[in-house]
Amino acid sequence: MIDLPSALPRITDPDVKRTYGVDASFGATPPEDFEVVRARDTADVVEAMTYAQAHRIPVVPQGARTGLNGAAVASEGCLVLNTERLNTIETVDPVEGLAVVGPGVVTEELKKAVRVEGMSYPPDPASAASSTIGGNVATNAGGLCCIKYGVTADYIRGLQVVLPGGEVVTTGRRTAKSSAGLDLTGLFLASEGTLGVITEVVTRLVPAPEDPLTALATFDSLTAAAEAIVALRRDPQPPSLLEFLDDLSIAAVQDLADYGFPQGCAAALLVQSDRPGHVEEDTRRYADIMTTHGATDVALADDAQEADALLAGRRALNAALEAKGPNLVEDMCVPIRALPRLVEEGRTLCARHDVEVTMSGHGGDGNLHPSIYFDPTEPDSRARGFAAFADLAQLAIDLGGTISGEHGIGTIKAPYLRRQVGDAALARMRAIKAVFDPHGICNPGTSYTA
Amino acid sequence: MIDLPSALPRITDPDVKRTYGVDASFGATPPEDFEVVRARDTADVVEAMTYAQAHRIPVVPQGARTGLNGAAVASEGCLVLNTERLNTIETVDPVEGLAVVGPGVVTEELKKAVRVEGMSYPPDPASAASSTIGGNVATNAGGLCCIKYGVTADYIRGLQVVLPGGEVVTTGRRTAKSSAGLDLTGLFLASEGTLGVITEVVTRLVPAPEDPLTALATFDSLTAAAEAIVALRRDPQPPSLLEFLDDLSIAAVQDLADYGFPQGCAAALLVQSDRPGHVEEDTRRYADIMTTHGATDVALADDAQEADALLAGRRALNAALEAKGPNLVEDMCVPIRALPRLVEEGRTLCARHDVEVTMSGHGGDGNLHPSIYFDPTEPDSRARGFAAFADLAQLAIDLGGTISGEHGIGTIKAPYLRRQVGDAALARMRAIKAVFDPHGICNPGTSYTA
Repeated sequence: MIDLPSALPRITDPDVKRTYGVDASFGATPPEDFEVVRARDTADVVEAMTYAQAHRIPVVPQGARTGLNGAAVASEGCLVLNTERLNTIETVDPVEGLAVVGPGVVTEELKKAVRVEGMSYPPDPASAASSTIGGNVATNAGGLCCIKYGVTADYIRGLQVVLPGGEVVTTGRRTAKSSAGLDLTGLFLASEGTLGVITEVVTRLVPAPEDPLTALATFDSLTAAAEAIVALRRDPQPPSLLEFLDDLSIAAVQDLADYGFPQGCAAALLVQSDRPGHVEEDTRRYADIMTTHGATDVALADDAQEADALLAGRRALNAALEAKGPNLVEDMCVPIRALPRLVEEGRTLCARHDVEVTMSGHGGDGNLHPSIYFDPTEPDSRARGFAAFADLAQLAIDLGGTISGEHGIGTIKAPYLRRQVGDAALARMRAIKAVFDPHGICNPGTSYTA
Repeated sequence: MIDLPSALPRITDPDVKRTYGVDASFGATPPEDFEVVRARDTADVVEAMTYAQAHRIPVVPQGARTGLNGAAVASEGCLVLNTERLNTIETVDPVEGLAVVGPGVVTEELKKAVRVEGMSYPPDPASAASSTIGGNVATNAGGLCCIKYGVTADYIRGLQVVLPGGEVVTTGRRTAKSSAGLDLTGLFLASEGTLGVITEVVTRLVPAPEDPLTALATFDSLTAAAEAIVALRRDPQPPSLLEFLDDLSIAAVQDLADYGFPQGCAAALLVQSDRPGHVEEDTRRYADIMTTHGATDVALADDAQEADALLAGRRALNAALEAKGPNLVEDMCVPIRALPRLVEEGRTLCARHDVEVTMSGHGGDGNLHPSIYFDPTEPDSRARGFAAFADLAQLAIDLGGTISGEHGIGTIKAPYLRRQVGDAALARMRAIKAVFDPHGICNPGTSYTA
């Protein structure tokens, strides 16, 4: 039993508390004994981290619980330290090109707030409408923009973090550049709550782009689609979005509603340009490139509204895949040239385990999200599903890739991390954790700590 | 006396060795007793690092010795481990958008090699013609491109490093994205040789931009120039280069040769666009913006050749400042709005110490390089010069900035780092060093280790 300081705002309703015991990861269940603190400010985080270290209580830092790999699931006897109420947008400064926000600010809210000032905060995870900036930092979230704009790490200048024991540390800078000692900020990107709790984020902003236009192309072979991706990446003005869907993903979208995606093709690519003054010209050129590389059909949006309509199917994809049934989402990123092998060998190995898999995601980055369908409550199905999951992770590593492009490792992928990064790097990650968290109370069992 | 393994290629000629005992920092002199190994390959680095740790010999990793803050100056009894011969460009891959290179590759050589493939490696420190990629990583070098393209850290995907004791560690990724454990790569950016020796670098590449055009504007007040910088940064398509020179810098350039810079003005701005299809339109718009904000004269290049001519004065600046006499180069970066205060208060405090200072640099980033003129061999002059240097560092901190935008801390700025980053961050940097270098043999006395 955890005997929290009474001043800390804990959740007492058991049903509400249970909802804070899990994130969005497959098959997550809350433990019996845990507490949830919904911090109101940095002082609450300091008090909780002071108490937790003194009593050696594991702390699970938590944002909006949209994570897919179990990094924000309560463990037995833990303190969930939720920061979604630290949701103030303190500063949006277009001259300095930065914003200062609480970790609980919802990604989409930040994007809207800076847009008013003519600026853009590019990272756009699929969960942007509900995920928080703090969680985006903790997982180094990506999204549909990465081919042109990169990931969350590319937009973080500095952090305020609270370490175990309650020490408050400020990292990084507010200036455009700095080269002053070791980069502590970068360590927190993708750290998944293993080093401390983020209480403030200084983001970089860029000038807002133009409203994009979209082209949707269909292919009757995966190889042709992959070749089109390579060709688009070689364009002197590459796309701002380049998404891939295989036949089963397209079918799932169309099963949800008619988004106008053609059935009976092997794959589809969605491509956008947001380049000021050139969206139409770029999109037409992308269409030509895809036709040259074997697209059987290309639909071109004439205006922003049509472009949105074409993209709506992609935006509905996660819901469509959910509607198909329970599925475990992979997140591998491989070299662009290895994409066809990832798709084809991934399908083959899933078939070998007798589980269905859909392949879709950020093709332009080599970053796909295979969804593996199985019943986690049925032991045989569960065993086959997780075996396929493990084999897919190994396939990504064998292809020179990573087992996580943008979701993080969490608990679910922790068993495979060593194979990717090697003993030497893993040992250093663990030793660095001990620098920040000598008693190992921050999210134990997650990612490289497992 | 260091008794190196005989297989290691050490420099025996004492005169040559002495040149490897210093970098480009102000007043640097080589010590009496040190050895220099010019590694031919990773195996040499492994052997040197194994030997050095076993015998607790300090190692000073070194590239092309262009550093300005003393991070690559030999210390008494040390082993200088130079990697300039590890200069192979192994891979340039435009499809994956990466290059794999040895740390000894000269920055300009990498830029040329990728340009042939239609790609760009943007970082462009002023020393690009002689500096090496390894040194650029170790200092997180910047340059004239940063306002649009960022710094070296933004273009490094992964590293191979050799740690004390000879262990070889691979960090990072070759894929477009990865979110898999702690970011060890980022720790080596700006680490200035304090963690290990870089033996391979995986860089990110982007599509090559268009040849830029240039506008040169003069102002009769610093405030007007600073306001023009703010306005240019708010343009929806901001410049790819935005350089600032004060009156004394302009005079120094014109004293070197007639670069067509107007004399008798308070400040000049050089502005470029490299946006495909828009360089002329952008440059004209920048000219208008500067006129609106008080430019007394604007010269516009009509073609790439004229643009080069306008920029030639800026490129000659370092030589021009050198020609004026011995000077210590600062490298502070402050919020954009603080630029006028940095220039004006910086001049005032230098006048108070009775030393001359020129102010120039990457105005668009808030990153200036004041050059402080004094005679390091004359005790009184030296004392006044270093006092002004220290006060300038404090001014940068007081303005919310950093004591190094892109040159690093080295030994010269080490005394001021704590004031900027604070005790908590500094303590963690030192503890992280111990993770990689438990016996403290890597570049002791440099940056956060001092």
